[in-house]
Amino acid sequence: MSIQGKNYIGFSLSAENPKTFQSYVPATDQFLPETFHTATVDEVNRAMQLAEKAADDYAQVPTAVRADFLIAITEEIMAAGDELLERAHLETGLPLARLQGERARTINQLTQFAELLREGSWIEASIDTAIPDRAPVAKPDIRKMLVPIGPVIVFGSSNFPFAYSVAGVDTGPALAAGNPVIVKAHAAHPGVSDLTAQAIVRAAKRTGMPEGVFSMLFDDGFEVGTALVMHPASKAVGFTGSYKGGMALHKLARERDEPIAVFAEMGSVNPITVLPGYLKNHSVELGKTLAASVSLGAGQFCTNPGLVFVTETEGLSDFENSYKREIIATTSATMLTSGICKNYNKLREEVFKQNEVTELAISDNLSPGENQAQASIARVSGKAFISNPKLHEEVFGPFSLLIVCETTEELLEAISHLPGQLTATLMAEEDEVALHSDITRRLAKISGRFILNGVPTGVEVCPSMHHGGPFPATADARFTSVGRHSILRFVRPQSFQGWPDALLPDELKNSNPLGISRLVNNVFTKDAI
Amino acid sequence: MSIQGKNYIGFSLSAENPKTFQSYVPATDQFLPETFHTATVDEVNRAMQLAEKAADDYAQVPTAVRADFLIAITEEIMAAGDELLERAHLETGLPLARLQGERARTINQLTQFAELLREGSWIEASIDTAIPDRAPVAKPDIRKMLVPIGPVIVFGSSNFPFAYSVAGVDTGPALAAGNPVIVKAHAAHPGVSDLTAQAIVRAAKRTGMPEGVFSMLFDDGFEVGTALVMHPASKAVGFTGSYKGGMALHKLARERDEPIAVFAEMGSVNPITVLPGYLKNHSVELGKTLAASVSLGAGQFCTNPGLVFVTETEGLSDFENSYKREIIATTSATMLTSGICKNYNKLREEVFKQNEVTELAISDNLSPGENQAQASIARVSGKAFISNPKLHEEVFGPFSLLIVCETTEELLEAISHLPGQLTATLMAEEDEVALHSDITRRLAKISGRFILNGVPTGVEVCPSMHHGGPFPATADARFTSVGRHSILRFVRPQSFQGWPDALLPDELKNSNPLGISRLVNNVFTKDAI
Repeated sequence: MSIQGKNYIGFSLSAENPKTFQSYVPATDQFLPETFHTATVDEVNRAMQLAEKAADDYAQVPTAVRADFLIAITEEIMAAGDELLERAHLETGLPLARLQGERARTINQLTQFAELLREGSWIEASIDTAIPDRAPVAKPDIRKMLVPIGPVIVFGSSNFPFAYSVAGVDTGPALAAGNPVIVKAHAAHPGVSDLTAQAIVRAAKRTGMPEGVFSMLFDDGFEVGTALVMHPASKAVGFTGSYKGGMALHKLARERDEPIAVFAEMGSVNPITVLPGYLKNHSVELGKTLAASVSLGAGQFCTNPGLVFVTETEGLSDFENSYKREIIATTSATMLTSGICKNYNKLREEVFKQNEVTELAISDNLSPGENQAQASIARVSGKAFISNPKLHEEVFGPFSLLIVCETTEELLEAISHLPGQLTATLMAEEDEVALHSDITRRLAKISGRFILNGVPTGVEVCPSMHHGGPFPATADARFTSVGRHSILRFVRPQSFQGWPDALLPDELKNSNPLGISRLVNNVFTKDAI
Repeated sequence: MSIQGKNYIGFSLSAENPKTFQSYVPATDQFLPETFHTATVDEVNRAMQLAEKAADDYAQVPTAVRADFLIAITEEIMAAGDELLERAHLETGLPLARLQGERARTINQLTQFAELLREGSWIEASIDTAIPDRAPVAKPDIRKMLVPIGPVIVFGSSNFPFAYSVAGVDTGPALAAGNPVIVKAHAAHPGVSDLTAQAIVRAAKRTGMPEGVFSMLFDDGFEVGTALVMHPASKAVGFTGSYKGGMALHKLARERDEPIAVFAEMGSVNPITVLPGYLKNHSVELGKTLAASVSLGAGQFCTNPGLVFVTETEGLSDFENSYKREIIATTSATMLTSGICKNYNKLREEVFKQNEVTELAISDNLSPGENQAQASIARVSGKAFISNPKLHEEVFGPFSLLIVCETTEELLEAISHLPGQLTATLMAEEDEVALHSDITRRLAKISGRFILNGVPTGVEVCPSMHHGGPFPATADARFTSVGRHSILRFVRPQSFQGWPDALLPDELKNSNPLGISRLVNNVFTKDAI
């Protein structure tokens, strides 16, 4: 397997455009030799035409065979072995151990969808049988299940070269649901993307999938992404990244004749709210916990805790001292790109310059290499925070702002200025939760995931994980990008009325040949009719 | 109970605006004496502020008590008795028998949601228990359920004064989900709306719901609707009506800082495709079936079959003769408003004037009264249809266009020009379905409900009914406005991570006190943990 540097259009390689770009190595501030051809509008159109054609055939592929395809992808990714991991390490600056873990998560995600397909009940089959002699009118036989929507556009994300990229949280469920996928590869890890695309294409070929079920296009600018979102055959968009990027896609999609959903996950400041009793009882330990969460992965997570709210109560100075000590003891880490690193330093300095903001601590251990992010924390009063919207914004990287409020009333006011978030965390003793129900309710209202006495980093891949939140955390709070329910972004329900058993899809046949759980005359059962 | 003519803002009446309008009686072309005060922007703001405040309290009301509220609404609507039915008859011109049926359907819809709340499993509770000793990192306890989203704006629809209006398909699920509702009453039946609002307010008071859980505002223009959609506290919009109206709301919502979903159901032409074998075997009967469906309720249904595709094969002339005979024998019916009636006549005449279109039949029995719609059908060749987009549009009323194609290949081409539809109907012998799989697949692709050998009119209220379809039938094909799943428009999932049992909502407690079905460690069960 070697990097091709060309666009993957169905089962063919294409390089119409002489315009190319190279992989950047953040740790050395240098470029790798391979060149990647930016796709042309013609190549976009060809990929979309293939996808539109493949959509009909792929929708007819039995779900068990789609499961084989997903498993084949995991096998091909594993077969890419250390070459893939090492390329990812070079292109992202992320440690190999982290990348190994992320690859395992990616394999796990795809495997979970294969299992979901094999189990089959995810399709939400529903059957209402006829009552021909009902008065005043006969009741017809009506049955319903989820069906694919058509080609899905996936934008690779820079901070997870496996889990949120070419074969990640959007591609997995979109393919599982029966839709072709067209990936716009992220320019920050084109080599990883290239090798992953090869794995998917090989898996598609060996499991007999129709050509066009997968394509991937390169671009280090915005033209290809724009053309993909605007193409009439596109039916949905998956994106994880910045607010600016997500809203740009959202606005683009509005210009279409046919509106389509842009499932944009656009980051968060993930507030941590510490109540007085908890602060008193866990001051030193809390400093350690938060410092570890803030500095994890150079803070390059959408669940990084960017704001910590406390009150001026017993334990505050012990907490602050512990928090500072731990942050100072962290070691710098390579950021994903020079742009992200420059932006981190710029935004952090801007926060430091704000009225009443004081620098609390900055990591004292600089690793060798370029684009190093040093974890850092700052402090501000509740009043100054409330009056300064600049302080409510995300600083992408290992930075967190401590907001010290005079009272829990001021704390409530401070968190009331926060918009929708992926997560909100409450640090509280059990009896404090009801005592401060106004704070609890406010945090519940703004968050997609509400954590008690834990940290928001670490997004468990399981059915109960909701990774999404009220705007602006995501464009549509109804949907998650992690876990089995993420497949609901890429399907629509369809009813079948009056069809004889032989002509119905297996999922809706009387005998329940797939043995799935179904809602039959309003009762869930796996029984035949 | 008497009509108040004022805006219902929480539990108070308000009439700040001297501007009023009156109920129009389509059958007599006259106005009723009562006046209705158009709401002011100030009144809109007051209703929304009350709703925003009520949202927090109403979300805490146990679902079983919300069920009592819904049942109380049905009781109060029934208590409004004949006065309500007769007012509806005057304001809409719809026959009393139809209105009685529609009221029963509305009661049924609300009762079904009360039952859904009492059963409880609709909330999609999901539990993944902790694995503290998992390597390399501990798995936290994560649980998830659906929670309310906040104030929902509901636009009453003209063609269903009960089922799609003040207490209809949007209000029921929005209230069931735990959200306050603010209705913009439809100006075509303000008296019915007024009486229904009183029923809801009385039900809210006697079941102890917070003030602001329901408000209703009048307007015979667009200002109030615009202000409601644009208000920052609004979290979703429910609308059933024209493409023009739905897209206007959709575009409005795009201008907001915080995007919200407009669940707009915007009508359809509901194509009927007749395959040769079926035409041959059922020619005369088919004419009767279609004529009855086309003329039902003066054709004022979003599922009215506006296009019928046939081929020039055996049985065609028998079918046409039967169809013509039946249409001629229908009796005219009063349309909902003079505007709808004028528009019907205008659009129908425009179709008649198109190249190669011939008038086939027009109802010969004119009932007494104003605003009478005569059922009518026209005929055109497949070729002329394909080349004339004007013929692909909906004519709201008892009109249908017969498209006679030379071959089934031409028929496939003709239906390939159709956009998304609420319904598509195939009339075929069983062996013809597979024989014409390209036609079958195309119809499946564009429709929300795919009917075999039946008619699209008659929307059964049951779990398997999907009333929604690919754009432009609805703004988002993922959601239905009919049946239990319509509640999914007005909720969002929320995860709870690391919460002790005592602090979790009942739905997520270990003991499963509500006895609901839950996904526990990826297996559906009603068992406690």
